[in-house]
Amino acid sequence: MNLELIHAAAQRLKGRARVTPLLGSPFLDEIAGRRVLIKPECLQHTGSFKFRGAWSALSAMDPVQRDRGVIAFSSGNHAQGVAYAARLHGTSAVIVMPSDAPALKIENTRALGAEVILYDRATEDRDAIGTTLADERGLTLIKPFDDPQVIAGQGTTGLEIAAQAAEMGISQAEVIVCCGGGGLTSGIALALEHHAPDMQVRPAEPEGFDDVRRSLRSGQIESNAQLTGSICDAIITPHPGALTFPIMQRLCGPGLTVSDDECLHAMALAFQRLKLVAEPGGAAALAAALFRPGQLSSDTVIVTISGGNVDAQMFQTALQRFL
Amino acid sequence: MNLELIHAAAQRLKGRARVTPLLGSPFLDEIAGRRVLIKPECLQHTGSFKFRGAWSALSAMDPVQRDRGVIAFSSGNHAQGVAYAARLHGTSAVIVMPSDAPALKIENTRALGAEVILYDRATEDRDAIGTTLADERGLTLIKPFDDPQVIAGQGTTGLEIAAQAAEMGISQAEVIVCCGGGGLTSGIALALEHHAPDMQVRPAEPEGFDDVRRSLRSGQIESNAQLTGSICDAIITPHPGALTFPIMQRLCGPGLTVSDDECLHAMALAFQRLKLVAEPGGAAALAAALFRPGQLSSDTVIVTISGGNVDAQMFQTALQRFL
Repeated sequence: MNLELIHAAAQRLKGRARVTPLLGSPFLDEIAGRRVLIKPECLQHTGSFKFRGAWSALSAMDPVQRDRGVIAFSSGNHAQGVAYAARLHGTSAVIVMPSDAPALKIENTRALGAEVILYDRATEDRDAIGTTLADERGLTLIKPFDDPQVIAGQGTTGLEIAAQAAEMGISQAEVIVCCGGGGLTSGIALALEHHAPDMQVRPAEPEGFDDVRRSLRSGQIESNAQLTGSICDAIITPHPGALTFPIMQRLCGPGLTVSDDECLHAMALAFQRLKLVAEPGGAAALAAALFRPGQLSSDTVIVTISGGNVDAQMFQTALQRFL
Repeated sequence: MNLELIHAAAQRLKGRARVTPLLGSPFLDEIAGRRVLIKPECLQHTGSFKFRGAWSALSAMDPVQRDRGVIAFSSGNHAQGVAYAARLHGTSAVIVMPSDAPALKIENTRALGAEVILYDRATEDRDAIGTTLADERGLTLIKPFDDPQVIAGQGTTGLEIAAQAAEMGISQAEVIVCCGGGGLTSGIALALEHHAPDMQVRPAEPEGFDDVRRSLRSGQIESNAQLTGSICDAIITPHPGALTFPIMQRLCGPGLTVSDDECLHAMALAFQRLKLVAEPGGAAALAAALFRPGQLSSDTVIVTISGGNVDAQMFQTALQRFL
C-alpha cells in the first residue's frame, strides 16, 4: 500500500467519483472555537465515501475476472457502493446481507442492480455462504477496507482535501476522520503524508467502540468488546485491519471518541448550518470538532462527513432533540 | 444587463462564492423518467444562491460608498446573503425585517453581523423606514432581484451549469429554476444563452403564485392576487421585476407550477437520495422535474435547489408525509 496506488486510483476515479466540496459555516466555527472545514462525502454517489473504494477496486480488476462478477458482505454503505460501481462497470454484484437488515437498504441495494442474498445471522455462517458462492460462480470478493485498491480509492478523498485546503491557503490542520475499519482514515493519511505534511489525521469513533483509539495507544490491534449498542452502525467494526492499522499507527492519532448524543447533535447542526444530511456514524468527526475542543490543538480542523444514509426516523430524532 | 456583467461578477466571486457541484441520483432519474441533474445552491454560503448576488453587488460598489454601509429589506435568504457579504467586505449592513419574522431568522441575520431593524407590518411603512435610514446614514439599498449586479451574481450559477454540464457531455437540457422575482432565472438564462444555447430555462413557481408563468404567457407583467398562503415563501414576490421580466420574456418559458405538497415530497426525496436539505420554495424546480414529466420534453433536465433555509418542523413534516 503506497501513495502511487492512490494517485493511480485518482486517475481511474476522475469523472466517475464526485469531487466533493470543502464547506464551512461561521456558526460552526463559533461553536468549535476554531475554523471547521467539512468534506461532505454524504454527497458522494450512493451517499457515502464507499463508492470511491468500490470504484477503485472494480476498475483495477482484470476485465475478464471482473466480468465474472463481484461479491461483498455488507448491510450498509459498502453494499451500495459496490452495487453501483459494479453496475456502472457493466458487471454483476452479489451482496450478502443479514435478513434482518432494514428493508430500505435491501431495496436500495437491489435497485442499484445487485443480487441480494439474505442469510440468517443466528443460524447461518456468512463467510461460508460467501465462499461457496464465490467458488461456484467465480466471483471476486471486494473487502470493505482491508484491500489496497479500496484504501487507495478512499485515499483520493485525502488528495482532494490537500488540494482544496491549499487553495484556501491552509496547510496546517487536524483532519478528523470517521473511523470504522480504517480504510478512509489510512487512505487519507497516506495522501496527506505527502501532499499536506503539516496535517495530522485524528480518527473519530463512538464511545465504547474505540478499537482504533485503543490500538493506536497500545501499539497492537485491539478489538471492541461488542459490536452492537451504538447508533453509529456505519463505523463499528470488530478491530482495525491488518493493512490499515500499520498505516494508522505510523501516521494517525491520537484517536477521539464521541457519544451517540453528540453525533445526533452534530447531525442537527449539519442540517441547520450546512444543509447536509449526515448519518450518525458519518457525523462522528464533526461531533468531535464541535464538542471536544479541548482534545484538539490546531486553528483549523477539517472533518469528514463520511455518509448520509440515515432513515427519516433517526434524522427526526436528531432534529427534535437538538433544534 | 448583459453577459459581460455576469462574466465580471464571476471574476469577483471567484474564491468567494462556492462552486456548487452538479449532482444526480439514479433513483431520481427513475422517478422523473429522464436524467435529472441538480445544482444545489442550498450549499452556497448562507444556504441559498442569494449570497452570489449580494457579493456581486457589494464587490461592484464604489469603496467609499460601500464603507458607509448597505441596507436591504428581507426576512429571508436575501437578508442573510447581504449580511454575510457585507461582513466579509468589512462594512455594515442594516436589514429591515418584519417584527413577526421567525426568531431564528432574526437571530441568524444578527449573528452574521447585520443590524436588524424591526418594523410592525400592520402599522409601519417599510419603505419609509428604509428610505429615512438610508438618507440619514448614507446607506446604499441592495435590492433583492431588480438590480443588474444582483442579476449578474445570480447568473454565475448559469456559467457553472453550462461548464459542468459540458464536462458531462450534455449540451441540450431544460433548466428548471425556482423563480420568485426572477433574478436567478434571468441571470441563468443570460449565461446559458451564450454558453449553452441549446438549453431552455423553465421557471418553476407555486400554484396560485405563478405571476411569472402568467406574465410570460400574456407578454406583460402580471401580479399575484395574494402574497401569503404557500409554504414556498422564498419564491413568492408580487410580480416579476422591470429588469428581470424582459430577459425572461426573451429567453425563458413556458413556466411550470407545482403544489406545496409536491415541494414537500421533493424535499423528502432530496433528503433520501441526495443528502441535501431543501426549503419548500427551493424544492419547486425539483418537484416540477419529478412530478410534472408531461410538461417537459428534454432527455436531461437540470434543476436548481435554490435554498435550504427551512426550519426543523417543516422539514419533519416533509419526511413524515412522504417517507
